Amino acid sequence: MNVYAAPVRDLRFVLEELLAHRSLSLPGFEEATPDLVEAVLEEAAKLAGDVWGPLNKVGDQQGAKRHTDGSVTTPEGFAAAYQAYVEGGWNGIGVSEALGGQNLPEVVASAVQEMLHGANMALGLCPMLTAGAIEALAHHGSDALKATYLPKLVEGTWTGTMNLTESQAGSDLSQVRTRAVPENDYYRISGQKIYITWGEHDAAENIIHLVLARKPDAPEGNKGISLFLVPKFLVNEDGSLGERNDVTCASIEHKLGIHGSPTCTLSFGENDGAIGYLVGEEGRGLNHMFTMMNEARHKVGIQGIGVAERACQHAFAYALERRQGRSPKTRGGAECSISDHLDVRRMLLSMRSRTDALRALALYCAAELDTARHAENDDARQTAQARADILIPVIKSFSTDQAVEIASMGIQVHGGMGYVEETGAAQLLRDARIAPIYEGTNGIQALDLAGRKLQRDNGEALTVLLHDVAATVEQLNADPALKALGSGLAAGLEDLKVAQALVLEQGRDPEIGPDAVQAYATPFLNLTGHVLCAWQMGQAALSAQAALNNGSDDPFYTAKMRSAEFAITQWLPVGRAQRAVIEAGMQCLSDFEVH
Amino acid sequence: MNVYAAPVRDLRFVLEELLAHRSLSLPGFEEATPDLVEAVLEEAAKLAGDVWGPLNKVGDQQGAKRHTDGSVTTPEGFAAAYQAYVEGGWNGIGVSEALGGQNLPEVVASAVQEMLHGANMALGLCPMLTAGAIEALAHHGSDALKATYLPKLVEGTWTGTMNLTESQAGSDLSQVRTRAVPENDYYRISGQKIYITWGEHDAAENIIHLVLARKPDAPEGNKGISLFLVPKFLVNEDGSLGERNDVTCASIEHKLGIHGSPTCTLSFGENDGAIGYLVGEEGRGLNHMFTMMNEARHKVGIQGIGVAERACQHAFAYALERRQGRSPKTRGGAECSISDHLDVRRMLLSMRSRTDALRALALYCAAELDTARHAENDDARQTAQARADILIPVIKSFSTDQAVEIASMGIQVHGGMGYVEETGAAQLLRDARIAPIYEGTNGIQALDLAGRKLQRDNGEALTVLLHDVAATVEQLNADPALKALGSGLAAGLEDLKVAQALVLEQGRDPEIGPDAVQAYATPFLNLTGHVLCAWQMGQAALSAQAALNNGSDDPFYTAKMRSAEFAITQWLPVGRAQRAVIEAGMQCLSDFEVH
Repeated sequence: MNVYAAPVRDLRFVLEELLAHRSLSLPGFEEATPDLVEAVLEEAAKLAGDVWGPLNKVGDQQGAKRHTDGSVTTPEGFAAAYQAYVEGGWNGIGVSEALGGQNLPEVVASAVQEMLHGANMALGLCPMLTAGAIEALAHHGSDALKATYLPKLVEGTWTGTMNLTESQAGSDLSQVRTRAVPENDYYRISGQKIYITWGEHDAAENIIHLVLARKPDAPEGNKGISLFLVPKFLVNEDGSLGERNDVTCASIEHKLGIHGSPTCTLSFGENDGAIGYLVGEEGRGLNHMFTMMNEARHKVGIQGIGVAERACQHAFAYALERRQGRSPKTRGGAECSISDHLDVRRMLLSMRSRTDALRALALYCAAELDTARHAENDDARQTAQARADILIPVIKSFSTDQAVEIASMGIQVHGGMGYVEETGAAQLLRDARIAPIYEGTNGIQALDLAGRKLQRDNGEALTVLLHDVAATVEQLNADPALKALGSGLAAGLEDLKVAQALVLEQGRDPEIGPDAVQAYATPFLNLTGHVLCAWQMGQAALSAQAALNNGSDDPFYTAKMRSAEFAITQWLPVGRAQRAVIEAGMQCLSDFEVH
Repeated sequence: MNVYAAPVRDLRFVLEELLAHRSLSLPGFEEATPDLVEAVLEEAAKLAGDVWGPLNKVGDQQGAKRHTDGSVTTPEGFAAAYQAYVEGGWNGIGVSEALGGQNLPEVVASAVQEMLHGANMALGLCPMLTAGAIEALAHHGSDALKATYLPKLVEGTWTGTMNLTESQAGSDLSQVRTRAVPENDYYRISGQKIYITWGEHDAAENIIHLVLARKPDAPEGNKGISLFLVPKFLVNEDGSLGERNDVTCASIEHKLGIHGSPTCTLSFGENDGAIGYLVGEEGRGLNHMFTMMNEARHKVGIQGIGVAERACQHAFAYALERRQGRSPKTRGGAECSISDHLDVRRMLLSMRSRTDALRALALYCAAELDTARHAENDDARQTAQARADILIPVIKSFSTDQAVEIASMGIQVHGGMGYVEETGAAQLLRDARIAPIYEGTNGIQALDLAGRKLQRDNGEALTVLLHDVAATVEQLNADPALKALGSGLAAGLEDLKVAQALVLEQGRDPEIGPDAVQAYATPFLNLTGHVLCAWQMGQAALSAQAALNNGSDDPFYTAKMRSAEFAITQWLPVGRAQRAVIEAGMQCLSDFEVH
């Protein structure tokens, strides 16, 4: 039961049918043919299903362990599974050839990430953090830093971390206190960072920490923060590993889930000070870090989808196998599997439909990121980037909130067996529960959307995106078989427009603006997520219906039709309620005295 | 931070103001004065806060342990804490004097239960199961069985269990295979039962198992099942403990939460067969068991509320203490605690408002149970019982589903600290997650409501209950300050009526009826829960407004107003969406082929 099979068909449906492989026709991806993409997905599925997946439970049970000397060992098999990933060249698949990568589109890299996170989220975090470090270095590092560190990071021989949080500086990074004192052509870093994912481990030769810190003379607040590269082992001129740097793992957290992923407290400079190198400009550390944060937020959304997919697989397998009760007399009254009871089927279809929708939206966003980076035309790049900017907080928050609910529903499908750890359903809830918290809590994402992203262009990027939603409504309405979906989506679209206008209007009010953005942020993000997911499922219905009209008798398409129907007629209404929540106003929140 | 203080004021608000202590004027409760109730609540709060609460984390960390000899030890301090409970006379507070109890109304017993579950849900399960055994024995046991077992069970010196589930018989108990072979004036029981809560432990002298089993000549299905009493230690004629009976704990489950509560697999009759005694009539075992199940379901709802309350307390304390970010410039722009951010406050008020509403509804139901048992007038008793029958599945399901969400939101308020086990927020989610599963999954509750309970009287009992909701709408509308709440509640009421008509109509259709009930059950229960909770918060608003109008400056009442406003204007809309879900029909569920 506790098995993961990568959803290659579902991923291909999105890449080939919903996105029509549009990233492949962008300049720079000439060598990425549909056949190549298919082969990549098949190979990734093997790594995920055969190598990473079977370690998911081992990782949960054994967890990462810190020893008295400060070293950390990861669960049995993790280092070898990571090695298999490195040797397969997977770490660089989305990285440009110039940097030593495979130069495949983000949309393909995202599909592969989903598989790996579905197989083993705790292990998947390791390369996810490395990807962030590559991004930050590639954009902001000096040529010397890039030459020394990038090739190994792209290979995956060395891994990367993001060192942001300190105990007094979580959502508010302006409070960072870690110090960086200049010395020769480097800095001496001292301070303590917490919640450092894969901050210390035994799966790679070296670990490259990217650390937010402050020079002694730096101003207070955000503008005094710079970004530094601090390797675990210093690197000699010839590229070989030198001395151990002055950074140690002081402890690892005992967490609800992702036990296989060591979450470390790192102490920098307990002796002479850790040697670190400035990345990018002084005082621009937060900006540089956000380069990697934005990417990472998309990847956390993908993580949620990976876990949601695995929860679906467990629940479907259990519901088909578990026999209990009888079908209604009107359908024969025979003993049946629980998947035959419509109440159970509601849970299964709800899980499947939401996972389908979230996947389609996340990959849509990845395709926009491809366009933003590779389109020939400036305008096309900017439009795509603006669209991705809107989508990323939605994908991060909405996918991870939904993943928690989907994993919880997966437990419910298992009944009592779901509460017992041996089935693996409970682990998925425990693992998924971190995703709404890290890389910026989902509340922070909502503020990013309803505040910064919406207000800076007066809602323009979202408005343009909603034109595409309206076009899908038209297409659905044009087919009598899909009209109900068209009107469902149209109603959601209208709600979102009304909510957008309200958030914009109150958000720009000099008196109540900042509070209004705070008050409406979460319901607004939630509504946006619902409508965009329903939109994607409208697209899925159009594709599936076209295939069926063309005479396909593939049950895959009929299943996608059910999934789309559920998404628009049974799931979207719950999201639409967020318009009423926003329209109810913010008074009771402002008036509420917390004590 | 990880501290529980029983919410005496909130409980008194419901008992005294919303319910106007109406149970106390029922025949038989002459000695239960408001002062006595107040003293009982204060004393219970001490037991919960000082004795049970501090063990909550210990219980989670140590868990129950089974030894090779089949014995089970509970976590350090659990046995003593249970003993303190027994010595305080708490086990019999809701039991009649004739049976050796304190004869307090159910509504008071329920308030005490909420405190104990909030303090320590894993430990609270032990007496919860005993209460079920008392109920079943008191109603169906022979005089001899009652004389031998009831006094000790009522004291709590012995504890009780419910032995229903077998691996092939979960939601469908007709599949029970445990055998009961007649011998002299007893039976020899053999078979294996799973998921037996507190099935073996070291906190009491004896354990009285109530076991569903089948005589060799019994018919298949429900009608062949009888109920048996199987003591861990046989009881001599003089009441002293005799030989160990042939029942052993074969294993205990490794669960997501409630680690302190041993969930046992019990083997009956590995040697000669365990000696058991028939309870009630042969072949009526399921009916007899449901006597205790119904009570137990209400208690599971209460459990959910206890955990939700604790989650609120943790989250409020953390949000007040944790300083991060600044208030908006419009409000001074100073460094502030996170409770000052409206997005965080939304989470806090959402948690508080839902907990308030669920508590009010559950205690309302308890008052109905008091009336059903004690009213002089037959009609009054029957009306109250019919109402409780409707409410119990709602309270069980809706409170526990919400408790899971509230506990999850509590984690979110804590940010990264919520994911680390040391804060205790994560434990609450892990503990709460069992409640939607046991004592009949929430899906089974929904079928009970939308199927049996609604269809048997053509919706009459619910319709009568909704007249009371309509009366509250009128009262709210009569006060200009509460009109918005009146119209919000009215809209929810209308939705529920429409949904009820639809479920009744399609449910009685001979073709699609059984499937329709299955398809609509969960959204219908959800909508019912939302509307009834909003109704209770409408009542709360009326009470609080009256106090404020009378010149009270107690912040308790202003907080209750905010809670009521949130419940009706911000939470109810989400529930109202379930009408649209039901109106969307069942086609996509019937058509969905699970594979």
